[in-house]
Amino acid sequence: MPDTVRIETAKAETTTFREVMAEIIQRITEGPWGPGSLLPGEVELAEEFGVSRTTMNRALREVSELGFLDRKRKAGTRVRMAPIRQARFEMPLVRAEIEKTGAAYRYQLVSRDVILAPDWLRERMRLKARARVVHLLCLHFADGVAFQLEDRWINAQALPLATEQDFSAVGPNEWLVATVPFSEVEISFLAQAADAQMVAHLGHAPGDPVFCSERATWWQNAAVTLVTLAHRRGYRMTTRY
Amino acid sequence: MPDTVRIETAKAETTTFREVMAEIIQRITEGPWGPGSLLPGEVELAEEFGVSRTTMNRALREVSELGFLDRKRKAGTRVRMAPIRQARFEMPLVRAEIEKTGAAYRYQLVSRDVILAPDWLRERMRLKARARVVHLLCLHFADGVAFQLEDRWINAQALPLATEQDFSAVGPNEWLVATVPFSEVEISFLAQAADAQMVAHLGHAPGDPVFCSERATWWQNAAVTLVTLAHRRGYRMTTRY
Repeated sequence: MPDTVRIETAKAETTTFREVMAEIIQRITEGPWGPGSLLPGEVELAEEFGVSRTTMNRALREVSELGFLDRKRKAGTRVRMAPIRQARFEMPLVRAEIEKTGAAYRYQLVSRDVILAPDWLRERMRLKARARVVHLLCLHFADGVAFQLEDRWINAQALPLATEQDFSAVGPNEWLVATVPFSEVEISFLAQAADAQMVAHLGHAPGDPVFCSERATWWQNAAVTLVTLAHRRGYRMTTRY
Repeated sequence: MPDTVRIETAKAETTTFREVMAEIIQRITEGPWGPGSLLPGEVELAEEFGVSRTTMNRALREVSELGFLDRKRKAGTRVRMAPIRQARFEMPLVRAEIEKTGAAYRYQLVSRDVILAPDWLRERMRLKARARVVHLLCLHFADGVAFQLEDRWINAQALPLATEQDFSAVGPNEWLVATVPFSEVEISFLAQAADAQMVAHLGHAPGDPVFCSERATWWQNAAVTLVTLAHRRGYRMTTRY
């Protein structure tokens, strides 16, 4: 590792923790802690480095979050064979996301239907035969301009209450958060060509690249909801840490 | 919260932890723990629920990861005013991502240049005036088919070693992981219309929606690298937990 990077001065209050972190990374990348190595315990390391256990814990946690370490409660801390990088994205409710930019938020229900789940949805959400679902199409506006198109399915078997909601004033997103937790979630990000719905509601030209996120949730093996969020032109999902 | 969701049977070994979690979520969504409430301490809660401190800790951690709680070491645990949902994505090296599917991985360097950083890059990466950068264009193949196009910039001031690497055999991704850590990272996901480079190398039609991820990293305030990864047709970035 070149000195030119190493010698940059960190903020004073975090120096110790960063120094410990740099030393751990150096031992991993340059030896003696090669891939697969089992690290000494936290207490032992804190003693060796002459730092508090809190500082050592934070350094190990951060190095771990950079993907270098695999920490298990009983098996201890091992150097990963290949570093795994983890990206964490905060996904606030769309209302909060819009209001944070200083824009005014508005919600609009486009359509609401209670129907038998189509086959693709039953398969996708592991629903029972003849399961009924609530299908909602909603728009979220920032300062009057369409920001996000929400295409949502809710499992009416698991959430009969959903069939009684009209969702005209409060979006299903906010209602679900307040009503039901989830224990299993699958999130995908993808680029999609604008379809007729996106053209009609988000102002895309047909075929335009649209950033979509898809989210499916279950609560203790019962499907709760599947939603696709299509975003306006130029949208980016960004995280920093 | 409807009983139909609540009464699903969880796996035996996690029942206690899930029950505690469900009760905590119920207290948050239905009272008495409204938005902004300060929760009792972990020890006190463990006693009240009649579970071990480990179980209570896990339940609180999971409820917190669902975005309901804000946990601070000294200030204690508070109910968030609005739940924040966090999505975590594991981003392995592309070699690992491809090999995991059973496909054979191949790397190819398309071009390599050492040049003065263009203005947009200096601004984007907070580089100094007349900063030199290594610019690389690389392809990653799965079973001989282009999987990912990597367009990468490396700050030569911070990493002079990079100017000595030819990157013909080992990609900059793997080299960087082994050479330099990062302390600050910014990741964006976006949908982009296929440009000439993507058409030439990834087989997209011009204007096709392409899923791209962009990643900028710094090490103690020195810019290390900026990379855009453009993916083949139909690529999704998925996470489950």
